[in-house]
Amino acid sequence: MQQPIPKPGDLLAGINSPKDLRALDPKDLQEICDQLREYIIDMVSVYGGHFGASLGVVELTTAIHYVYNTPKDRLVWDVGHQAYGHKILTGRRDQFHTNRLYGGISGFPKRSESEYDTFGVGHSSTSISAALGMAVANDLDKGDRKVVAVIGDGAMTAGMAFEALNNAGAMNSDILVILNDNCMSIDPNVGALKEYLTDITTSKTFNKIRDDIYDMLGHFRSAGDKMRKIASRLENAVTAAITPGSLFRALGFKYYGPTDGHDVDGLRKTLEDLKTVKGPKLLHVVTVKGKGFAPAEREQTKWHASSSPFDKITGKSLSSAPVSKGAPKYQDVFGEALVELAEQDERIVSMTPAMPSGSSLWPMMNAFPERAFDVGIAEQHAVTFAAGLATEGKKAFCAIYSSFLQRGYDQLVHDVAIQKLPVVFCIDRAGFAGADGPTHHGAYDISFMRAIPNMVISSPLNEQDLRDMMFTASKFEDASWAIRYPRGKATGMDIRKEFKSMEIGKGITLREGEGVAVLSFGPIGKYAIQAADQLAEEGVHIGHYDMRFAKPIDEELIDEICEKYQHIITIEDGARLGGFGSAVAEYISEKESRPSLKILGIPDRIVEHGTQEQLHDEVGIGVEGLKSTVYSVLERA
Amino acid sequence: MQQPIPKPGDLLAGINSPKDLRALDPKDLQEICDQLREYIIDMVSVYGGHFGASLGVVELTTAIHYVYNTPKDRLVWDVGHQAYGHKILTGRRDQFHTNRLYGGISGFPKRSESEYDTFGVGHSSTSISAALGMAVANDLDKGDRKVVAVIGDGAMTAGMAFEALNNAGAMNSDILVILNDNCMSIDPNVGALKEYLTDITTSKTFNKIRDDIYDMLGHFRSAGDKMRKIASRLENAVTAAITPGSLFRALGFKYYGPTDGHDVDGLRKTLEDLKTVKGPKLLHVVTVKGKGFAPAEREQTKWHASSSPFDKITGKSLSSAPVSKGAPKYQDVFGEALVELAEQDERIVSMTPAMPSGSSLWPMMNAFPERAFDVGIAEQHAVTFAAGLATEGKKAFCAIYSSFLQRGYDQLVHDVAIQKLPVVFCIDRAGFAGADGPTHHGAYDISFMRAIPNMVISSPLNEQDLRDMMFTASKFEDASWAIRYPRGKATGMDIRKEFKSMEIGKGITLREGEGVAVLSFGPIGKYAIQAADQLAEEGVHIGHYDMRFAKPIDEELIDEICEKYQHIITIEDGARLGGFGSAVAEYISEKESRPSLKILGIPDRIVEHGTQEQLHDEVGIGVEGLKSTVYSVLERA
Repeated sequence: MQQPIPKPGDLLAGINSPKDLRALDPKDLQEICDQLREYIIDMVSVYGGHFGASLGVVELTTAIHYVYNTPKDRLVWDVGHQAYGHKILTGRRDQFHTNRLYGGISGFPKRSESEYDTFGVGHSSTSISAALGMAVANDLDKGDRKVVAVIGDGAMTAGMAFEALNNAGAMNSDILVILNDNCMSIDPNVGALKEYLTDITTSKTFNKIRDDIYDMLGHFRSAGDKMRKIASRLENAVTAAITPGSLFRALGFKYYGPTDGHDVDGLRKTLEDLKTVKGPKLLHVVTVKGKGFAPAEREQTKWHASSSPFDKITGKSLSSAPVSKGAPKYQDVFGEALVELAEQDERIVSMTPAMPSGSSLWPMMNAFPERAFDVGIAEQHAVTFAAGLATEGKKAFCAIYSSFLQRGYDQLVHDVAIQKLPVVFCIDRAGFAGADGPTHHGAYDISFMRAIPNMVISSPLNEQDLRDMMFTASKFEDASWAIRYPRGKATGMDIRKEFKSMEIGKGITLREGEGVAVLSFGPIGKYAIQAADQLAEEGVHIGHYDMRFAKPIDEELIDEICEKYQHIITIEDGARLGGFGSAVAEYISEKESRPSLKILGIPDRIVEHGTQEQLHDEVGIGVEGLKSTVYSVLERA
Repeated sequence: MQQPIPKPGDLLAGINSPKDLRALDPKDLQEICDQLREYIIDMVSVYGGHFGASLGVVELTTAIHYVYNTPKDRLVWDVGHQAYGHKILTGRRDQFHTNRLYGGISGFPKRSESEYDTFGVGHSSTSISAALGMAVANDLDKGDRKVVAVIGDGAMTAGMAFEALNNAGAMNSDILVILNDNCMSIDPNVGALKEYLTDITTSKTFNKIRDDIYDMLGHFRSAGDKMRKIASRLENAVTAAITPGSLFRALGFKYYGPTDGHDVDGLRKTLEDLKTVKGPKLLHVVTVKGKGFAPAEREQTKWHASSSPFDKITGKSLSSAPVSKGAPKYQDVFGEALVELAEQDERIVSMTPAMPSGSSLWPMMNAFPERAFDVGIAEQHAVTFAAGLATEGKKAFCAIYSSFLQRGYDQLVHDVAIQKLPVVFCIDRAGFAGADGPTHHGAYDISFMRAIPNMVISSPLNEQDLRDMMFTASKFEDASWAIRYPRGKATGMDIRKEFKSMEIGKGITLREGEGVAVLSFGPIGKYAIQAADQLAEEGVHIGHYDMRFAKPIDEELIDEICEKYQHIITIEDGARLGGFGSAVAEYISEKESRPSLKILGIPDRIVEHGTQEQLHDEVGIGVEGLKSTVYSVLERA
């Protein structure tokens, strides 16, 4: 059933680009904001998507496009899931119902989608670096464009943002960083910076001191000349030292704020003023995530995103599909198994870079609060913190998304692998991420880890194997161990309660066959099971091996397979180049006589967003793709 | 000729572990420091090594080991090339002449070398994360050990250090971070943080304000009760706001300092005091890099490290080897070619994360200061800054060491490759780094880049090809391009002045042969040239192909080779797994009939330090290794 496409309010209906917005009278901006907010709620309540973040920046988005001459002036969104309003105001209102759908617009800013999307995002904390690059280019071109980056307080905790501030603050380029402070990333923001910002915005200390100072300076005004001079010098110095934002001023930025992020007229005026200020400057804007949608304001983590239709007033789910029972998410299997393991083994600790919900670390954080750590958006630190714990005999389970582990890659090499520390990486969102698209696809982890010594790389066929892998890894002391699993549902099998050890580097024969052997790695083996069943019905009897380990690979089993079959097909939910199939290719290429090998995986191009199944089918690693590969291999022979 | 091993002074000769040091009277510490400094100068003047950093922390090292109960208390060095004094005091005095030599002790702290080396290092900015892990483990174990991290001001600019401060500052664990502030990383430290620290240490602003405040508060003391109350509250607030270190206090650390890092007795007393302070705290210590060795104090970058013997007084080189002419370093070829290209193409800009000397970016920084950027120790930012410039049509040459690019890996994927931005990566220190050892070996870049779409990966056989690759890359708009080359000397060939375009993805036939074809990637092809010559003299005529590109690989040429030869050997100065040889394996594995393939590269284990040639020989990718592989392949056939 096609859902009806919500209609925008009358004023919003006339905004086909920021030019239309800028033609409005300032007094109409609040109305635009109201209609924009309503439109986002209407859209997401029907089609799903992230939206807490976007609701929080409706006024800010409107004010920026009103004041700045976009797209000539450059607007860079950090992370980007707050950019729904931006997309709607920049010509994509009528496509917005395709948001995050296969073939539709992206849930994040994307250069190929619009000239208003100056920099593609998805991961956090890149905006200041990118904006500085744009500002420096403008200097070199002697241009007059402005550059604005909007970054959340959560994203500001990432080291990358600090690196960019440190560099920008020592340069003269004009850049405005807007700190969108809502005390949340996806889960509540954590860390010292957050406490610092809270101090500023609640103004407990600062306002009191400021008042005292002004009181006191009043007394001096009436004093003699020398005292007046001191007082004046003091006023400047103390104001500079005591106004909030000393941290940013220490980094070379002029600090403005904190200011109300839901007062569109105030924002407009402030931005007009800041257009004339030279050099690096930071505007601290306080917003409420989910602003204007009561359920989302109340429960910000839950309403970070919604994947199913809901009632616009109450927030209740309207999904007619029964809540599917039986098949738990891999994330939840991880989260529960971790608690069970931690009960048995007090060495076990765990950490997540700002993803306690996404990675299901909450059960562990609740059961063992002193042994589970949300370290903030800080992948580099998360990995080395785990390594530090490992040096003291702790068994660290580092829960991290595949694409975010890219941020901790050097730490994986330098701090874990080179030192042979037995950290366990539970790599979530491995393979296609789905609707989040290319920035979140966990495509490269097998390839980037396989090259590193002192690592075991495994992936479970199902939830039972995930539990047993975690158990086996918890006992393993010789090296680090990566367990990769995808976003979403496991198989729904009955789970054996007690854990069992697995043999490291050993695969499993699921089905013997003839001619063609399929070697699968990870949960994508489910397609191979289905394909083999269907092929068997069609009279083609392939073998199927669940290899479990991409490193070390099961050379003995591969030797046997090479003896028995004429053709091997490998399949993995990861990049074709350098991955599991490549490991098989490396191994068998030295053999004298060997089967032909066909490697199936994510091809060497950027694959866009869609459901995981759509994407698997698109690149030929679904059931149909595998079957047709089997037939083409057999035909060719 | 064996060099004489310098003798330690009499007091130092009695220090075989920190226990011996702690048995001394405090008044002897200065003498120990003097002898330690002299011993380091003696050693390095004869054997070479990094030492500017170590001379700067002689007093600090001595004071820490005197006050803290190492190794029970944990001392974590950041980067680690300042740890010579630490090594000498912790039982490695008499092995110190083997520092950085093949089979000798490492130039960095290393867990397998000593229980005093709590965490292996080489790359910067990991110490706070690791130390926090140790401190948290101590909490969980209800232990009473102390944890101290020593980090330089340069290393403090890296995002990773900020992530760790942000996390540690919000926790209660006892940790002491000692900020060793010498205003230098290897090159002068840059960025806003550096200016902030300079402000503190030169005290220009702070002291003046403090004086004024105290002046003023004096007046209030004589005033009425209400005013006295205000004054007292004000005094506390203003002192808190104005004393240096507000940046660190904003991040939840108690700040102490700045203090003189060359006053060993002062340091001792301060550390004694700090032992009793709970929670996260930072001690700001000001030191002089190269302290006590006049030439090194004067020219800190030059004397960061020395590879050849020098006169202890004047610093003049004592090397008897004539300065070798003819063969320039790859680094210098890069640096000069970049200036020539930038003269022809004003779009060209360049950046380095704190390695202007190491990467030879100085020529560009001198010729075009507004187009060349030292962004500080900030690899993540460097890559995305380049991407931002690329969005505005600039041609960014990002000069970065292979092992440091591991720090910018997510940015390479997320900000460059996914957006198909034509950034050029000039990847220095690719392959074995030599004496710096495993943390600096550029072993993984081919593997971790090859999996990423929208990348060209190339490596020149010689300096001429490096120039032409840079030229061709400068004109290439379709994707990003990585050019990898090793540390050190090129071939010394005559260089053609004008640039020529290369065909992308095409290899070169260097020698036709029979039976065995060697496919080399990069400068390591020089060994294949020598091996082929020698084998020819021995009657074995192998073919040799310089493939130039690991991505895209030259499939057409490989097809021809597969027709013609029975055996292929690939050779690369990079990890065997997932690298160039793996690309060849993937390609030919689908063929019906094909040659056998032997992949030569860095094996799947951590290879220690030594000269590049020693390491190539050790892992069988030198001339002899290649020759014996050729023979074994032929024998097996």
